[in-house]
Amino acid sequence: MSQRVKEMEGSTRAMVEDLCLAAKKASRKLALLDNETRSAALRAGAACLRDEVVLIGEENQRDINGAEAIGLSAALIDRLRLTPERIEAMAAGVEQVAALPDPLAEQIRAWTTPSDLRIRQVRIPIGLIGVIYESRPNVTADVAALCLKSGNAVILKGGKEAIHSNTVIADLLGDAFSAAGIPDCSMELIRSTEREATHTLLTQTGVVDMVIPRGGLTLQRAVAENAKVPVINHFEGICHVYVDKDADLEMAEEITFTAKVGRPGVCNAVEKVVVHSDVAMPFLRSIGPRLKAAGVELRADKHAMRYLPDARPATEDDMHTEFLDLVLAVKVVDSIDDAINFINTVGSGHSDSIITKNRETADKFLAGVDSAVVYENASTRFTDGFQFGFGAEIGISTNRVHARGPMGLRELTTYKYIVQGDGQYI
Amino acid sequence: MSQRVKEMEGSTRAMVEDLCLAAKKASRKLALLDNETRSAALRAGAACLRDEVVLIGEENQRDINGAEAIGLSAALIDRLRLTPERIEAMAAGVEQVAALPDPLAEQIRAWTTPSDLRIRQVRIPIGLIGVIYESRPNVTADVAALCLKSGNAVILKGGKEAIHSNTVIADLLGDAFSAAGIPDCSMELIRSTEREATHTLLTQTGVVDMVIPRGGLTLQRAVAENAKVPVINHFEGICHVYVDKDADLEMAEEITFTAKVGRPGVCNAVEKVVVHSDVAMPFLRSIGPRLKAAGVELRADKHAMRYLPDARPATEDDMHTEFLDLVLAVKVVDSIDDAINFINTVGSGHSDSIITKNRETADKFLAGVDSAVVYENASTRFTDGFQFGFGAEIGISTNRVHARGPMGLRELTTYKYIVQGDGQYI
Repeated sequence: MSQRVKEMEGSTRAMVEDLCLAAKKASRKLALLDNETRSAALRAGAACLRDEVVLIGEENQRDINGAEAIGLSAALIDRLRLTPERIEAMAAGVEQVAALPDPLAEQIRAWTTPSDLRIRQVRIPIGLIGVIYESRPNVTADVAALCLKSGNAVILKGGKEAIHSNTVIADLLGDAFSAAGIPDCSMELIRSTEREATHTLLTQTGVVDMVIPRGGLTLQRAVAENAKVPVINHFEGICHVYVDKDADLEMAEEITFTAKVGRPGVCNAVEKVVVHSDVAMPFLRSIGPRLKAAGVELRADKHAMRYLPDARPATEDDMHTEFLDLVLAVKVVDSIDDAINFINTVGSGHSDSIITKNRETADKFLAGVDSAVVYENASTRFTDGFQFGFGAEIGISTNRVHARGPMGLRELTTYKYIVQGDGQYI
Repeated sequence: MSQRVKEMEGSTRAMVEDLCLAAKKASRKLALLDNETRSAALRAGAACLRDEVVLIGEENQRDINGAEAIGLSAALIDRLRLTPERIEAMAAGVEQVAALPDPLAEQIRAWTTPSDLRIRQVRIPIGLIGVIYESRPNVTADVAALCLKSGNAVILKGGKEAIHSNTVIADLLGDAFSAAGIPDCSMELIRSTEREATHTLLTQTGVVDMVIPRGGLTLQRAVAENAKVPVINHFEGICHVYVDKDADLEMAEEITFTAKVGRPGVCNAVEKVVVHSDVAMPFLRSIGPRLKAAGVELRADKHAMRYLPDARPATEDDMHTEFLDLVLAVKVVDSIDDAINFINTVGSGHSDSIITKNRETADKFLAGVDSAVVYENASTRFTDGFQFGFGAEIGISTNRVHARGPMGLRELTTYKYIVQGDGQYI
């Protein structure tokens, strides 16, 4: 590594460290503000975004020009683009978060010990959260709103292709927040596009309390690999629908079909249908042509191939893949136990559903499948903060602790114990 | 590295990987057992320990002989030693855990969405937990009981000086558990004393769901540094007592004195007393000689030195140190805000207490100090699972998420969402 590169990296590192320390300090003051102050600041921020549609559009155009110049795909450029409608939606989103109930108002438990200590377990903000995301610049406003509403300071690190859009949004919101009494540095955007900036953020043990990567598997893996601070993973959603021998086959077909073709690119879309051998023939013969007509490529095991003349034989890899596309793997099993074992072995612990009318079989599935969300007679597509009624979503966790499944405001909090006594000692 | 060492490491790694996979598989079955089965197995295990006092004593003597041969200190050998009384206490401890309420019985929340999905958030075991500990062999039984009661499979890795004691305890419990219907491999001891064994355990991402290191700071740091799986840290307890200007000075003295001299080597002992300048003279002139008489070395800031003629001037390092000894640092501040800032800056977020009769000042401290447990008019020594009424303790977490402060059975659980519908899709 050249001396020049080393110096640049050193200065990026120092800059990000300073930003994190300042934000951590701000987080302590922010945690003490009441809900009305935090919410009013969000409303002021939303108003500011609306007032500056032209400015935001101009800065966004710089990113679009840059993206076109380096030949990014039309799909990526569309993700990057902020139209007046999208800016309005972004402002409205911030206002919606402001209007949600205060996630810090909850007392989790309270009790008195035999030594007459009064103990309360209360919700508090996590502290300083780092969020790393990719090209969509509206994430900047979205994440800033969720973190501020939950009393957390936040360091944002967006994609380098959206740097002008992200910068103008963060500047506008930051000014509005400060004017509304939010401590300076409570929300900071890392303006450096160096890789070293992300690396520094991921290693601020004791300063950055949690990092949330929002983006594809490559980003998730890179973050998990390099982070020294706690990370909320959003790994794969290899979701299953299991069609039991006692299923309502019409219901099974509607749920499977829509969970595949509705939005195949999302993590709660179904990637595999597991069918009990007793109903494999009628179910697959009915849904097969319909899936084919919708452009879905089927990859079937040997048994299922009998009823799916247009399917390709599934490889071992197909059973472990999140296709995120119009592809569906099909597996036939001989029992509920085989279905549960299969899903626990090749699934990703995200969301899995059983379709059955049999109470006992359903209970076995709901208890035995080791996923964040298990469904009976409903689509896996409901794994979503809004569908769950959280009013907002910062992501869907595939971690096993702290937060599982859809994460709303509550999942951006932790707790502390407050103990009051009258001079007790031991 | 020689070919021979490489091969040994490779075989240790493969052995630990196999053990983890088998335990993970067992964890899925274990999670489905009811509380009575898990508790009865623990009672059977306790009976077995009692029946085999002689055998345990013999195996323990082998460890003691080994420890003496390599010249371990008398204190370490005492930690290693299992007398018949200690074996009885170990068995009784397992029975106490068996008698605790089922931590898996709780439904955290339940609600119905506008789309008429019935959502329940229920407690489940975390899955497979790794526990790494040092010389005391009774930890083997203690940890096995806590994990089994909470439905978790566990891989144990004890200190190499206790290998014979740990092995006999794990074998006896394991046989008793199996006979009582607990899935094989639910509790496994790593019998290799190679360093590679620990390293392998720490990197089984997706198999080992959480690791809990129980031991000193060196172990904690090594685990935090090398782990790829989530870790519950038990870092330092740099605990403070803040004596406010409105304190009952007699109460302040009793709490400070006992929190220092009672058991100076534990993490919830006080390491620093912070005193408001208005009461520094009477408080320090009264407690100073008493602490000195009890053998406590005082390290005071400039202001406090005026009233503590026998103290040494505190260095900057003293303010950041967990002494775990009869040493107390003393700091004088001019306001509650200074006290809060000081504690948040140099503390370790473990346990801190304010002594005051002023409601407003107390509330400021309880809200502003960013620690797992904050006290008003009580000793920091109460940060303990038993004192909190949890009935058991697997440790005291200094993490900010999942579990903070004392960890009982509930903190060995996570949750999943069970969603029941009538064919809903989107």
